[in-house]
Amino acid sequence: MQPAFAFTVHKTEGAARLSTFQTPHGPIQMPAFAPVGTLANVKTLEPRDLQAAGCELILANTYHLYLRPGHRLIEKFGGLHQFMGWHGPILTDSGGFQVFSLGAQMKLDEDGVSFRSHIDGSRHRFTPELVMEIEQALGPDIAMVLDECANPLDRDYLLQALERTHRWAERCKKAHTRPDQALFGIVQGGIYPDLRQQSARFLSELDFTGYAIGGLAVGETKEEMYRTLDETCPFVPIDKPRYLMGVGAPEDIVEAVYRGIDMFDCVLPTRIARNGALLTPDGRVNIRNAQYAEDPQPVQQDCTCYTCRTFSRAYLRHLYKAGEITALRLGTIHNIQFMLDLMRQIRAQLAAGTFAEFRTTFLARYQMSDQTVRHQQRERYLAAQRS
Amino acid sequence: MQPAFAFTVHKTEGAARLSTFQTPHGPIQMPAFAPVGTLANVKTLEPRDLQAAGCELILANTYHLYLRPGHRLIEKFGGLHQFMGWHGPILTDSGGFQVFSLGAQMKLDEDGVSFRSHIDGSRHRFTPELVMEIEQALGPDIAMVLDECANPLDRDYLLQALERTHRWAERCKKAHTRPDQALFGIVQGGIYPDLRQQSARFLSELDFTGYAIGGLAVGETKEEMYRTLDETCPFVPIDKPRYLMGVGAPEDIVEAVYRGIDMFDCVLPTRIARNGALLTPDGRVNIRNAQYAEDPQPVQQDCTCYTCRTFSRAYLRHLYKAGEITALRLGTIHNIQFMLDLMRQIRAQLAAGTFAEFRTTFLARYQMSDQTVRHQQRERYLAAQRS
Repeated sequence: MQPAFAFTVHKTEGAARLSTFQTPHGPIQMPAFAPVGTLANVKTLEPRDLQAAGCELILANTYHLYLRPGHRLIEKFGGLHQFMGWHGPILTDSGGFQVFSLGAQMKLDEDGVSFRSHIDGSRHRFTPELVMEIEQALGPDIAMVLDECANPLDRDYLLQALERTHRWAERCKKAHTRPDQALFGIVQGGIYPDLRQQSARFLSELDFTGYAIGGLAVGETKEEMYRTLDETCPFVPIDKPRYLMGVGAPEDIVEAVYRGIDMFDCVLPTRIARNGALLTPDGRVNIRNAQYAEDPQPVQQDCTCYTCRTFSRAYLRHLYKAGEITALRLGTIHNIQFMLDLMRQIRAQLAAGTFAEFRTTFLARYQMSDQTVRHQQRERYLAAQRS
Repeated sequence: MQPAFAFTVHKTEGAARLSTFQTPHGPIQMPAFAPVGTLANVKTLEPRDLQAAGCELILANTYHLYLRPGHRLIEKFGGLHQFMGWHGPILTDSGGFQVFSLGAQMKLDEDGVSFRSHIDGSRHRFTPELVMEIEQALGPDIAMVLDECANPLDRDYLLQALERTHRWAERCKKAHTRPDQALFGIVQGGIYPDLRQQSARFLSELDFTGYAIGGLAVGETKEEMYRTLDETCPFVPIDKPRYLMGVGAPEDIVEAVYRGIDMFDCVLPTRIARNGALLTPDGRVNIRNAQYAEDPQPVQQDCTCYTCRTFSRAYLRHLYKAGEITALRLGTIHNIQFMLDLMRQIRAQLAAGTFAEFRTTFLARYQMSDQTVRHQQRERYLAAQRS
């Protein structure tokens, strides 16, 4: 491990950890949440908005950037940081998740994976070596190995995928040479503890700078996900950051920190903002609802984001209902602030040794309202079925 | 006229004027350009963006706000300024232009105009009295009278419309009572100097706080518009601000200031930004063009806007091509800065007594490039016709 990527655990509470991960573009205080900037841009936001929210890490997607504008163009501009004007830490995924989501447009073999672009149908091929070349050209602080994202419930397929994923991890490790870029391995194995432990053991020996728990939040229940974390985290090196990819919802983040996860990324806060779903400690607010038509309050009373400091729920609802682009942005600004505030709260509670209590009270307040919403939705659905 | 709305001409150069118009929400340095915030929001921007660009006046649309969220709701929130979080001067149009654009969905009589909403087809009716009620509820610093926007080339219809417009102006004047809101009259008469002078004379007697030149930039040639300004401005009171509604393009603004206009509004800079057309002193740049794919320069070298300070043409092109919402906003930020910088330059040149020279050099540089673009477009069109 390069000294540039020192990982320091300051304090623990049960399995949960308060830590800092050093990168060439600054420290990341953990547990940390990374907003997703798919195409070298967190949708509707600018680097200054992320800075204002106290963001310390963003994710960009290798698959998307490889297709457009191309990693060679970004390399010419001095890498992602220069190209997109974000000078804090960046992580890129390997593109594997996107490619494996292409279904019939994708064909896998031992050496790599061939696929057709979702944009123009053109043919492409990812191998562990090419993905390392792309990620090194993109130049993020943290790169991920190419892995196979299999159905977490299909044991037979998982077994086969796991061994290939391990061989690919070895090839990635060998092909990766940039000393100013950390390479993370990805533990697979679905919901099966023996497979997870086998994967964790194998990858530990390769001595990556950090470890992701991959293949979760893609079909299993929340309970299965939490149990898998319980059964996997203890086998992942204790002195490396642990990253839960593609998670997530506030309740999942709290539960995963509780089980020993240090890093998260998810499109949820930005995507649901564009649909008018705004995050608050009392659950999601659907700002389009008629009940907010004359509501002079901000989305969240104690929130310090520009949206909450400046506008009423009534004004936001008006912008969303009228289809104004500004609405999508104001909603995103709030949701990103909410997520980063949540991470700050988690870190403060860990520092104070009160995270376990925080977990209980946060989840009770957040999920109670969220369950109310889901209950109402189910009732409406059932009523519609009956009529 | 209320002292709140003092209009001071500091300097003149030919017909052009350097002036200040006081409003309850601060002074407007003139010549001034107002970005358009149709639905109480300048599309893709926030009040802080307008402030950063040095904006001193925005326009909002009475027709659109009357339909949603409704003037009564906005009134409950203390008016447009409070509702939208913009605390500088605001001007509202009368809604006449939008209603008369509805065509078959609109029916005119002596007392007012009936129409169907473009949103849900619901029936509505504007009279001079109701429009004054709406604009007083919305609470902008400057309100416009309800007028009839007729074809500027149809003399017979214009004659008939002119007299009705004058009777409506009288009714508006009578119905308008808010002392903290200026009411502007609108001179009509199409491209006919005798009708324009008749309208200017009639409205002058009603002693409005300011005067718009209406019914231009809606079908006549640029030469007809400039000639109409030459033949109308001398008959509009010299001690009141003169407002050219719905204009416009940079070259038109320079030409209109030269002829004695003090105020402008137009959707052009915001609308074309959303299509990827960015304004520069050398004409419009279509940022989607392949020639910018690897261009490391900012859109405009000496521009101080956030977009130009932060991003390359290559990055902006990437965002536009990929359909990222952020692109629309970054383009809008630049185009608004360009327009407000142009107005600042015009005022500085007027202060220095060098506006006439500036007009010549600006137009030569700006239009030369613009004509090149148009020429290329025509050539492409003709080539397509031939093939």
